[in-house]
Amino acid sequence: MHVLMTGAAGFLGQRLTRALIERNALDGRALSHLTLVDQMEAPIPSDAACSVDTRALDITADGAMDAVLDTRPDVIFHLAAVVSSAAEADFDLGMRVNFDATRALLEVCRSRELSTTRLIMASSVAVYGGDMPEVLDDMTALQPQSSYGTQKAMCELLINDYSRRGFVDGRVLRLPTIVIRPGRPNAAASSFASGILREPLNGEETVCPVPTDLELFVMSPDRVIEALLHGADVPGADFGASRSLMLPGLTVRVDEMLETLREVAGQEALDRVSYERDPRIESIVASWPPRFETHKAQRLGFKGDDSFRDIVDAYLEESRKA
Amino acid sequence: MHVLMTGAAGFLGQRLTRALIERNALDGRALSHLTLVDQMEAPIPSDAACSVDTRALDITADGAMDAVLDTRPDVIFHLAAVVSSAAEADFDLGMRVNFDATRALLEVCRSRELSTTRLIMASSVAVYGGDMPEVLDDMTALQPQSSYGTQKAMCELLINDYSRRGFVDGRVLRLPTIVIRPGRPNAAASSFASGILREPLNGEETVCPVPTDLELFVMSPDRVIEALLHGADVPGADFGASRSLMLPGLTVRVDEMLETLREVAGQEALDRVSYERDPRIESIVASWPPRFETHKAQRLGFKGDDSFRDIVDAYLEESRKA
Repeated sequence: MHVLMTGAAGFLGQRLTRALIERNALDGRALSHLTLVDQMEAPIPSDAACSVDTRALDITADGAMDAVLDTRPDVIFHLAAVVSSAAEADFDLGMRVNFDATRALLEVCRSRELSTTRLIMASSVAVYGGDMPEVLDDMTALQPQSSYGTQKAMCELLINDYSRRGFVDGRVLRLPTIVIRPGRPNAAASSFASGILREPLNGEETVCPVPTDLELFVMSPDRVIEALLHGADVPGADFGASRSLMLPGLTVRVDEMLETLREVAGQEALDRVSYERDPRIESIVASWPPRFETHKAQRLGFKGDDSFRDIVDAYLEESRKA
Repeated sequence: MHVLMTGAAGFLGQRLTRALIERNALDGRALSHLTLVDQMEAPIPSDAACSVDTRALDITADGAMDAVLDTRPDVIFHLAAVVSSAAEADFDLGMRVNFDATRALLEVCRSRELSTTRLIMASSVAVYGGDMPEVLDDMTALQPQSSYGTQKAMCELLINDYSRRGFVDGRVLRLPTIVIRPGRPNAAASSFASGILREPLNGEETVCPVPTDLELFVMSPDRVIEALLHGADVPGADFGASRSLMLPGLTVRVDEMLETLREVAGQEALDRVSYERDPRIESIVASWPPRFETHKAQRLGFKGDDSFRDIVDAYLEESRKA
């Protein structure tokens, strides 16, 4: 089993790499080779039982993926992307990385006749927006209100058509907002959703840029990684008429998140949060719907978090180990 | 008022040209200039009160539209497309014409800062498919089951984002199946829907390639042209969170269409229809939903046909005049 990953140096990529190497298998087959691709060389874990190569590639460059795809991977995790705020700030960059590079990757798969290669792309709750029903489901229209969401929605359509035509065996997982991301804030509009917990837990001040009655649809990093791995296991035909689905996130209000912070780390931690609304972030994040019926994901065996407290506890346990 | 049209030599293009020249106005302003673009030179009507120029251009060629857009049109009707069967038979051709050329046109608008130019694209019922509710509405997901539908859906997303960002003032009208098209059969999977009426009315034999209990969502050519013109009149902001809408077609079964044929032209006309199912056509057409609640289109003042008999009568009247 040869697995290729784009965006391998990113947060999800490094975490998925660790998970693959720990399991040393995917879809019941032993891992033989892992190819990591990113702008910079992704670190190679020292304890890998399979061979690993890491390549620094600009996936937006002409023919960048030709040689990599000549190695005929069985599974491709396509995680490379420009985040939402960055795609909003620089339209051309977003189109190039989020859309054109995905299309180019699909074309190389097609030209190499990788019809059975399972390609799993990370999409986002940002494909939704506009005048939505209170609870969304698998048949709700995509009306993205950001360029990031638009680019991801276009990729979803393309992956579905490439799969329908037998050019590749694609799957698209729409990721809820990932909470709690470790590390530092990033340029994603949703960065605050981790920051308002992570920074106070680490003894740092932070700013909450949205109203506290805002609801988010969230998933822990561990559950997201499990979902990506599971996305490679499910038979493509089980996806039905569309290769896309929304993962089963958890609906939570910002003030519930903050109350959990207080429960876990006390009033002193909560006092490290100040409130200053940022209309730019709010306008993007408030366009993402917080409530879903994720029937399809559940039918296919994808699992979400049981409670927000579990998410925070898992973060703390991981921090202690690190 | 300077109007530009792509696909101007096609069926809809020529008809829209005639309508524009008859009205000599759009959105309450007199027509000053009309630019017609197609692969071959579209005919210039002799009775035009405004200046008309016609250009043979391959809109898929690099920079093809640069000079045309330098003339800063107020309204662009973007009708150029490869039809559904052709896009299914030749994936690359469909992507190039239906998607890449539309994207290139949007980019030229952006580079020329044509933020107030109203761009109206014809989309299609083919953007829908898969496991749909019995009656669709403006919030039903697009799950195209053809490359044509995929390409149109991608263009819709792009036009919405270009409009949201103020690069252009786009609008997308999803056209029902147009019945009765005059002239000869074409490569569209829906060509039979006109053929099973037109050919018998003209004394010719024809083949019905689908089961007669199949339902279609149809609109007459006149109503489609009125809708395109109205699409240029409606203020962009009235479209709300998405610049796309489904036009208010008429739901009709194939056997009802054939019964109308018998009413109008007798059993003798009906006997000119033979039945031989074509799985290739059926699989595409049966994936198009026949029932819609078109609230948004109706709110914005778009009008459909009153009855299928009206559609046939209008065709006969037009044939007599021709």
